[in-house]
Amino acid sequence: MKLRDELYLGIDLGGTNVRAAVVDPVGHVLGQEKHRLLSREPPQVAEAVVRAAKTACGAAGLPFTEMKGMGIGVAGMVQKGTGMVLNAPNLGWKEVPFVKLLQARAPRIPLWLANDLSVAAWGEREVGAGRGVNDLIVVLVGSGVGAGIIMGGKLHEGATGVAGEIGHIQVQPGGRLCGCGQRGCLEAYAGGHHLATWARDDTGRKLLEIVGEPEKVTAAAMERAAHEGDALSRRLLEEAGSLLGIALANLVTTLNPARLLLGGGVLAGSPRMMREAIAGVDAHASKLSRAALQISAPDLGDQAGVVGAALLARASLAEAA
Amino acid sequence: MKLRDELYLGIDLGGTNVRAAVVDPVGHVLGQEKHRLLSREPPQVAEAVVRAAKTACGAAGLPFTEMKGMGIGVAGMVQKGTGMVLNAPNLGWKEVPFVKLLQARAPRIPLWLANDLSVAAWGEREVGAGRGVNDLIVVLVGSGVGAGIIMGGKLHEGATGVAGEIGHIQVQPGGRLCGCGQRGCLEAYAGGHHLATWARDDTGRKLLEIVGEPEKVTAAAMERAAHEGDALSRRLLEEAGSLLGIALANLVTTLNPARLLLGGGVLAGSPRMMREAIAGVDAHASKLSRAALQISAPDLGDQAGVVGAALLARASLAEAA
Repeated sequence: MKLRDELYLGIDLGGTNVRAAVVDPVGHVLGQEKHRLLSREPPQVAEAVVRAAKTACGAAGLPFTEMKGMGIGVAGMVQKGTGMVLNAPNLGWKEVPFVKLLQARAPRIPLWLANDLSVAAWGEREVGAGRGVNDLIVVLVGSGVGAGIIMGGKLHEGATGVAGEIGHIQVQPGGRLCGCGQRGCLEAYAGGHHLATWARDDTGRKLLEIVGEPEKVTAAAMERAAHEGDALSRRLLEEAGSLLGIALANLVTTLNPARLLLGGGVLAGSPRMMREAIAGVDAHASKLSRAALQISAPDLGDQAGVVGAALLARASLAEAA
Repeated sequence: MKLRDELYLGIDLGGTNVRAAVVDPVGHVLGQEKHRLLSREPPQVAEAVVRAAKTACGAAGLPFTEMKGMGIGVAGMVQKGTGMVLNAPNLGWKEVPFVKLLQARAPRIPLWLANDLSVAAWGEREVGAGRGVNDLIVVLVGSGVGAGIIMGGKLHEGATGVAGEIGHIQVQPGGRLCGCGQRGCLEAYAGGHHLATWARDDTGRKLLEIVGEPEKVTAAAMERAAHEGDALSRRLLEEAGSLLGIALANLVTTLNPARLLLGGGVLAGSPRMMREAIAGVDAHASKLSRAALQISAPDLGDQAGVVGAALLARASLAEAA
């Protein structure tokens, strides 16, 4: 086997940027490209994805036609088996037949679409901090909150592909309003967007001195403010960590994974919230599940999207063949 | 293939009785036996299991030596791959090497040990109300509360075999004390044992008239009392249903199953609690997960244990071979 017989493209499609990379079977990136999206119209985005993919191939010094397949991870809900993006709030998409749009622009390459958390979890499982772990959960807390779930060595996307939406489990019935329209969702407490909203709604505090203007509130800034005595920042981060901890404990009790990877921008920015979350797992998960569990951080960082997408396409297309 | 080449024994081991049955590949019971356990000492229980198994073979008119394997479902936590019962409160067992004890008494037959919820879920999936459903969750609410989880067509027992313990997820942090030592577990609200305890702690009410003596409180009696105006019974059943509903909604949002089977003695006895639970799933599960979900009742009833154990042994031993 020549190595180049096994090269896949990985695409990481967010609300602002598209990233593309040529990835080998052990997760090395041979060439990559990052575009800013100029439009969120689905056909234009499909165009941008194919262009980024071809540029990444150019950077790797390889023709696009030699790629064995292309995996696309998208921040949103993806319908299993149909290539349809059901809902991608950052792109403003509902029921977009995205694989079809891509196929029209790149007819020969096999495509595989999945949500960004599934993609990240698969990447970690193949070449990251979950290598070889058959029962693995990856939870990322950024602007939103979600989980990628691997069980028995297989990605669990659910009956229709929308598993892992733990940002919308109920942690405080009747509580804060979430972007999804429900009250009391985990994301309404722990998601970076909501956290910053709640923090900046209260003015004249240390937090504002630190960030300069309310629009610049981040979990990291809140962490610093809390450290310097800001009571609201502290309370919000601890509440978020504590509710996240209970949600994670329940996940661990239910699924008994061997490893849980906790990451994402908000948790990276707030050691306080991370500490509370882990303390919650320690306190509330069933003892036998907790005893079987390792908790650590993801390995792949920014590259999880492209690497995971390429490796997931590789695994899925090989299985389908 | 002669049919009898494919016969397995299924054992359902509870805290009071052991049931054994000879089961064919489509789930028919060809012969069965039920013993009352005279002792809970592990060696005596192993003895009783083998005796019940042999009696069931006799009832089917078949020699024990013709059985291809024996599956044992036990009400408790089972360690994956080791044949060890980690914890079986009804039997008073901790870390009992039960398969070893059975092997000493029945050395030639391949054995497979699993917990009772996994066994029941597998039975429903093979020949019951979850036939052919690849992403299936079976939740039974009886004295305890637990789930059997099937994903991608495979039983999910977790990294060490203790997945599905949803009775011990936290639904009311800091709430009622559970038998496990934690506060706020689902089982402390919805489990029949706790429910009856809370109901009978309050005296002089309609419930007592219905049951005669406090020790006879059941979910069905509480349902009747609630119907006749007993406010405490009503409140307890509705609270249990509502917390169960949120727990189930979170499970559905997280795992996106195609079907959820809700059963067990408590739910069978209280339509009110069942109604609240389903209303909770409707109200709180993510919309896309709810849209993909069917909710129904298990099919196998009392036979789920023996039939599921036999069919799980069949599937597991065939896969291991």
